[in-house]
Amino acid sequence: MGKLDFWFEYGSTYTYLAVARMHAMASRHGIEVRWRPFLLAPIMVEQGLTQGPFLPFPQKLRYMWRDLERRAATHGLPYRQPAHYPPNTLLTARVGMLAATEGWCREFTERSFALHWTEDIAIGSDANLSATLAALGRDASRVLSQAQSAANKDLLRAATDEAKALGLFGSPSFVTRGELFWGDDRLEDALAWAQTG
Amino acid sequence: MGKLDFWFEYGSTYTYLAVARMHAMASRHGIEVRWRPFLLAPIMVEQGLTQGPFLPFPQKLRYMWRDLERRAATHGLPYRQPAHYPPNTLLTARVGMLAATEGWCREFTERSFALHWTEDIAIGSDANLSATLAALGRDASRVLSQAQSAANKDLLRAATDEAKALGLFGSPSFVTRGELFWGDDRLEDALAWAQTG
Repeated sequence: MGKLDFWFEYGSTYTYLAVARMHAMASRHGIEVRWRPFLLAPIMVEQGLTQGPFLPFPQKLRYMWRDLERRAATHGLPYRQPAHYPPNTLLTARVGMLAATEGWCREFTERSFALHWTEDIAIGSDANLSATLAALGRDASRVLSQAQSAANKDLLRAATDEAKALGLFGSPSFVTRGELFWGDDRLEDALAWAQTG
Repeated sequence: MGKLDFWFEYGSTYTYLAVARMHAMASRHGIEVRWRPFLLAPIMVEQGLTQGPFLPFPQKLRYMWRDLERRAATHGLPYRQPAHYPPNTLLTARVGMLAATEGWCREFTERSFALHWTEDIAIGSDANLSATLAALGRDASRVLSQAQSAANKDLLRAATDEAKALGLFGSPSFVTRGELFWGDDRLEDALAWAQTG
């Protein structure tokens, strides 16, 4: 069975499209996916990418919103432009890391992105976290406590270091059979590579 | 018949993929294409995009070369990584502008990109220009003289202003039925939009 590592940053916009599509598409291709949360900001800063690809550039930013809406429609995904951008998603990433360790990262990530991108419950907010954990039947106080433990923070830092070592510089990224693919619009290529190389 | 404006900068890397694919794909979809050369640099500078999306970032740059090669293979296009990047393509853009006015822009553009991306004859170089014009049976001294006339320079400036007014910020870009699409990986979406809106 083909394998693929799906690296993602919770604060990334286009990542919604990949998060929403990944499970069904990978299942159809018979690809086993590891959901790998990481922090993009430290990697960007280290590479001199201090600004982000869209926010400082009004014309690119306007395009991004329109493109996201169009691509969601093309993929048949629900979409509602969120009011706030960019979000602060550090705590959510820590919960995602804990969830990855415990085996429920996909469900957590799908739900937290969906609330942000279809109901405008901002990813990274307490409301989003509570609603997501409640929907998954998780004990919020246990999860938030463990997510903020030194051990879990270290795991997220290590994952971020691993992402950096793999040459990642953006989200979503897909790594399979020694190849790196960047962007939701490379998901099809990455899945094909995972199958056949 | 659907119509599409194909805006491109001769110095852009991913633009090769769109230049090489456009004619066959648009013909298949029954879309009439206007080839619209423009200068990306003045637009980038004005928007604060002073660095270009890849050159200053070693990991993104390495990824770009690998991705170009892979995408060319996926599209069934010949590809050879050129030795020099980025090229200086101002004179080539002026010839492209003249060619657009005279109705041979597609043939000129396809050929000059192909020499760069399959034979490593640098786009923008005298060798590339001479070989391209010779292949098309054009009188090089007449073309180069008219390309550098004040009137033709003004046309290229006006095209660049028009691109800016349309909200363009990168190459390749496709404009059809009031929608802007950016990037070779949006060519399929743009052609579909040109057909049905």
